[in-house]
Amino acid sequence: MNQTTRNIADQIIKESIHAVLPDQAVMRALEDFHPGSGRVLLVAAGKAAWQMAAVAVKVLGIKADGGSIDRGIVITKYDHVQGDIPGIDCYEAGHPVPDENSFAATAKALEMVQDLTVEDTVLFLLSGGGSALFEQPQIPGEELQEITRALLSSGADIVEINTIRKRLSAVKGGRFALAAMPAKVYSIVLSDILGDPLDMIASGPAYPDSATCQEALAIAETYKLPLSKKAQELLRIETPKKLSNVTTKITGSVRELCRAAKAACEKLGMEAIILTDHLDGEAAQAGIFLGDILKSHASSGKKLAFIAGGETIVHVTGDGLGGRNQELALSAATRISGLKDAAVCSIGSDGTDGPTDAAGGYVDGETMEELAGKGMKIEEILSENDAYHALEQSGGLIMTGPTGTNVNDVAIALLYPES
Amino acid sequence: MNQTTRNIADQIIKESIHAVLPDQAVMRALEDFHPGSGRVLLVAAGKAAWQMAAVAVKVLGIKADGGSIDRGIVITKYDHVQGDIPGIDCYEAGHPVPDENSFAATAKALEMVQDLTVEDTVLFLLSGGGSALFEQPQIPGEELQEITRALLSSGADIVEINTIRKRLSAVKGGRFALAAMPAKVYSIVLSDILGDPLDMIASGPAYPDSATCQEALAIAETYKLPLSKKAQELLRIETPKKLSNVTTKITGSVRELCRAAKAACEKLGMEAIILTDHLDGEAAQAGIFLGDILKSHASSGKKLAFIAGGETIVHVTGDGLGGRNQELALSAATRISGLKDAAVCSIGSDGTDGPTDAAGGYVDGETMEELAGKGMKIEEILSENDAYHALEQSGGLIMTGPTGTNVNDVAIALLYPES
Repeated sequence: MNQTTRNIADQIIKESIHAVLPDQAVMRALEDFHPGSGRVLLVAAGKAAWQMAAVAVKVLGIKADGGSIDRGIVITKYDHVQGDIPGIDCYEAGHPVPDENSFAATAKALEMVQDLTVEDTVLFLLSGGGSALFEQPQIPGEELQEITRALLSSGADIVEINTIRKRLSAVKGGRFALAAMPAKVYSIVLSDILGDPLDMIASGPAYPDSATCQEALAIAETYKLPLSKKAQELLRIETPKKLSNVTTKITGSVRELCRAAKAACEKLGMEAIILTDHLDGEAAQAGIFLGDILKSHASSGKKLAFIAGGETIVHVTGDGLGGRNQELALSAATRISGLKDAAVCSIGSDGTDGPTDAAGGYVDGETMEELAGKGMKIEEILSENDAYHALEQSGGLIMTGPTGTNVNDVAIALLYPES
Repeated sequence: MNQTTRNIADQIIKESIHAVLPDQAVMRALEDFHPGSGRVLLVAAGKAAWQMAAVAVKVLGIKADGGSIDRGIVITKYDHVQGDIPGIDCYEAGHPVPDENSFAATAKALEMVQDLTVEDTVLFLLSGGGSALFEQPQIPGEELQEITRALLSSGADIVEINTIRKRLSAVKGGRFALAAMPAKVYSIVLSDILGDPLDMIASGPAYPDSATCQEALAIAETYKLPLSKKAQELLRIETPKKLSNVTTKITGSVRELCRAAKAACEKLGMEAIILTDHLDGEAAQAGIFLGDILKSHASSGKKLAFIAGGETIVHVTGDGLGGRNQELALSAATRISGLKDAAVCSIGSDGTDGPTDAAGGYVDGETMEELAGKGMKIEEILSENDAYHALEQSGGLIMTGPTGTNVNDVAIALLYPES
């Protein structure tokens, strides 16, 4: 292993993740938060809800202590509440399948935003997992599950599923913001969905729904959904197409992760290019492309970094241990083998990659030969999806532990010739 | 189809191919050709041999007419001699399998470069296909074929195959240049191999061989090759490791193709980045990566181009019609769908892509919807390897006809917002 490029990679990874931690991300987003003269109510939903709320209370303070927040509610996953937050009621509920606790806590949030005035403000903090945790179905929970199952088993895509589910919910598809009217809603979204489609993140409780009743009915028809009379009626009720009371701030997205990686590279004297923050092809193939890029620039003598954020996929053909980031990196090693100053690393920003204890993988120009010396052929390892054990041998596992954020992955292909 | 980006793409393709045509490429390489005071002998081998020789004679002239070339030999594929060239004997021979005509013509070339002096110069013009066309085996042709078959069927890679074949040949592995000593050899190589490994192009008749006898014997042992006594002896004879009489110019390579594409983009007011000239992963996945890149830069408002040269691969799973360039482009269409100013094109520089009459494919932000309107789903088309028929429907086939060059492929992903 080339210790110079490994240190560089570790440094870039550390700074990139730091920039998208909920604390940092929420603090940045709160800089533009200017509540009205009335009450300020906090609602946080999602896997990072507790952390987001804790930061908001720390920054803005509770009214009882001279701050600006009157009271609030946190709805997060089981075991995700990390302690008391002054003025905030914390609830834990089911994820990824919503349960009665999801519904009960969401009901309390809806109740809290009733009867507000135009001077009041709802600070709405949303993170991944919100779709299950923040839910109030308008039909029995069992029926909702049956419809979801029918959609999934008939091959409906996620857009189609959400189009139906939004209409069956009292909070999704902009309806939570509608319920809070005429109060202002300041929505901070910690994004973990590629390209930040705001109506998709947690099914957009505070964002206008782009789908129409007509589209919803067509989907029900196509998939012959088992709908009760009540559900059929709900599909005919339009979701809000405009929400004049909402301001939305996306923060901690994969785009910010890429920007942070770029800034970290530049701080280290490298020229850095963000290729994409929409990466979504096959992990091993993305690794090959990044390796091919380094091969072509290796003789430039420049310190260079190429950054690609997103979420790749893996076709599992073997029964080894690994994750998409580890596969991407290991595959890149086949292309940069022998290049003295080249390295590729890739990590999941949440600190876990596949069913492993690693956040991702690191390879450099020495990796392929090191593995060959131990009798390991990278192409065979990849076909067995066993990147973890190979990277373990080459010292290429990146271990961060859980980071407390989840804004997809970032891969960095770098050239760091010592001048 | 977006006619603006289509016109831009066609313009870039036209100029890129023009720059790597043998005529242009050989002319550039001849600028540094300064023969000695003795005789000048021309040897051209490969699929573009006739064209390369014709240009050289046009530029340098024949001694009989006051020029500098004394005489020469062209060895090319059947039906590739396009007429007489003054002072040059033209031969046609077998490709991809060498035949008696290959051996006979190569023997004449070897004879021509015997007994030269240090003042004499051999102008050696090499292009793709030279490995079969320029060959003089030191064992019977049948035995050579049998050994090659044994290597192929036992899974030996191209480097291993060449290591063996070079030693069984009188011209490969630097031996042609050795035969011409002490004359100077000025070698112009029209490259069609990624990364220009000079000992691989036509098995390097005028380039030192990096492999050793020891390696050759190990390969023979590993694959239990059926070797005659003569062949066994030949494996023990070292190939030249240094050739002080040779100067090599690579021209018309995929690198020059990429540079020409960059220059064409810049002429059109675009900022252009060569990502790689070593592209070698799966065609459809490379298309996805390029599409993902455009998605991330679409809102920049800039005129941008991302260039990737090389040669992708296709895993054939269906029985449709297509080629790697058409698959790359069609796959990219899924990622740039709806982007007004985005387009991706990819072409084979020889003007043919797979078993089709197209050079490659073009797609833009409208392609996916256009095809959907005709009931065609891109993912299904790709799994049937039927890109040709889809692009035919969207007007996305690029037809250039045979171009007369072959320096791999180039893909260009572009954003061209009208200002």
